[in-house]
Amino acid sequence: MSFETTLSVFELAGVFVFAVSGALAAARKGMDVVGLFALALVTSTGGGALRSVLIGDFPVPFLRTPWPLAFAAVAAVLTQLFSRWLEARMDKPIRFFDAIGLGVFMSTGAMVALQLGQPWWAALFLGCVTAVFGSVLRDLLRQEVPLLFQPAELYATAALIGGVALVAAHVGGLPRTTTMLWGAGVTIAVRLFALYFHWRTKPPVA
Amino acid sequence: MSFETTLSVFELAGVFVFAVSGALAAARKGMDVVGLFALALVTSTGGGALRSVLIGDFPVPFLRTPWPLAFAAVAAVLTQLFSRWLEARMDKPIRFFDAIGLGVFMSTGAMVALQLGQPWWAALFLGCVTAVFGSVLRDLLRQEVPLLFQPAELYATAALIGGVALVAAHVGGLPRTTTMLWGAGVTIAVRLFALYFHWRTKPPVA
Amino acid sequence: MSFETTLSVFELAGVFVFAVSGALAAARKGMDVVGLFALALVTSTGGGALRSVLIGDFPVPFLRTPWPLAFAAVAAVLTQLFSRWLEARMDKPIRFFDAIGLGVFMSTGAMVALQLGQPWWAALFLGCVTAVFGSVLRDLLRQEVPLLFQPAELYATAALIGGVALVAAHVGGLPRTTTMLWGAGVTIAVRLFALYFHWRTKPPVA
Repeated sequence: MSFETTLSVFELAGVFVFAVSGALAAARKGMDVVGLFALALVTSTGGGALRSVLIGDFPVPFLRTPWPLAFAAVAAVLTQLFSRWLEARMDKPIRFFDAIGLGVFMSTGAMVALQLGQPWWAALFLGCVTAVFGSVLRDLLRQEVPLLFQPAELYATAALIGGVALVAAHVGGLPRTTTMLWGAGVTIAVRLFALYFHWRTKPPVA
Repeated sequence: MSFETTLSVFELAGVFVFAVSGALAAARKGMDVVGLFALALVTSTGGGALRSVLIGDFPVPFLRTPWPLAFAAVAAVLTQLFSRWLEARMDKPIRFFDAIGLGVFMSTGAMVALQLGQPWWAALFLGCVTAVFGSVLRDLLRQEVPLLFQPAELYATAALIGGVALVAAHVGGLPRTTTMLWGAGVTIAVRLFALYFHWRTKPPVA
Repeated sequence: MSFETTLSVFELAGVFVFAVSGALAAARKGMDVVGLFALALVTSTGGGALRSVLIGDFPVPFLRTPWPLAFAAVAAVLTQLFSRWLEARMDKPIRFFDAIGLGVFMSTGAMVALQLGQPWWAALFLGCVTAVFGSVLRDLLRQEVPLLFQPAELYATAALIGGVALVAAHVGGLPRTTTMLWGAGVTIAVRLFALYFHWRTKPPVA
């Protein structure tokens, strides 16, 4: 497979897994299929949408092709019908694909920002926003303090480290493709290591 | 009355009723007049504003004429002074005008999206967003899980069915005016039937 | 110091104090450094960002220079290390600088909107949004009903009164600099008087 195909497959896998995880989070709150669809959609597309809105790049990405809406609808219907089965089977795969999605979203988000002429520090921020904001929206709509902001295994921090690696490669003049893969790879590696070795953030000394 | 006048009257009635319902929701939480104004404004204008932001159509509609801000201010002041009286009298009228507002907002939202060159599936989504997002914002600001996502009489689903009817008419080449009225009418009818016959969504099998 | 320098110093002081108050609010919820950064950033930049998005002025201000992101990062790290010390010492200074920030943000927000051709009533609304929306976002992310909407010493109302003063000066043809200082001054004065004399808003008669 070419690089573009591989990337698209990974990115779509990331979108779909984020959509399923959003729909499952809605099911746990007793929401109906409208809630399942809404949480599937915001979890999988909220980060990219916020990136677009902050820099004025319209329409937002999830309205450029029908796939994101379709994926959210499929995730909502599947979860409506099989939430118990999915809860039992999807826990481990979701964690794994979520790490891949985190890396791919950070990396493509930062690259898009750089292509649109944003400076490196804005691209770093926008890559991290692309990667994590969907989960913040998911938790706000479920009426929870965002999990992202709680002490836990490095998540936003993994995206930040991967983003620094990507920006360093970009400043160093590496080819676009290498830069993007490198940023995604570092993010995914840090996230999986953090899960495996329980690297956690701590609350402030209160 | 011409079609445009009729539509404007219905739409302004919808805005005003959504504003009153937002202000009453704020009063039930013990908010002050600032909270009443904020919830009146987001409930009546949040859907149209999100539609505009997603497709990059600026400024957002509620800043194009002074009426939406004025309506929210009037709703806030009326509710500040007469919330007890309004609570007792407005329950039934609000439910009825809310159904009309749902249909009119869905229909005008979808038509605006089609006029701006969005594809049919995006217009369908944006019509539903226009109709329902105000109530999501209202509930988030009040610190509640959005009512829209809970099992209840068809609401977003009514907008979706009306949106499908509108898009079918649009694809079928019906005149703009007919298309818009038809979409609004189907939405309002489905919503009122759902209320009357207790057609409800269900939570997933958990 | 020239007017521009004075204004910049006050505005940056406002941003920094809003950032610290956001980070402290996150620490009180037991968030980690990611949450501290997120709340510092949205509290100090959310108002200006929403103003930009509503009128389509991109990129949002906090991505035009690196300072806002840097200030939020510094506030997060300081709070992570010294939250107990800051809690004890910063309470009074935060209240004072917060009043200055409220006035400066309202005033610069309204002036920017007027410069971009918005009508006076939209500029009045957008000035108030610039001044207060950061604190609304902060409270939503902490999972609290926004403090802004609760009965308390005049806050949004102080910004509104200052905004009316600014718009009156603008319509009356006063020079830009005088108009901006006057609007900020009235806001700050009303807020400080309200704190000192306990001028409070009341909940509706329920």
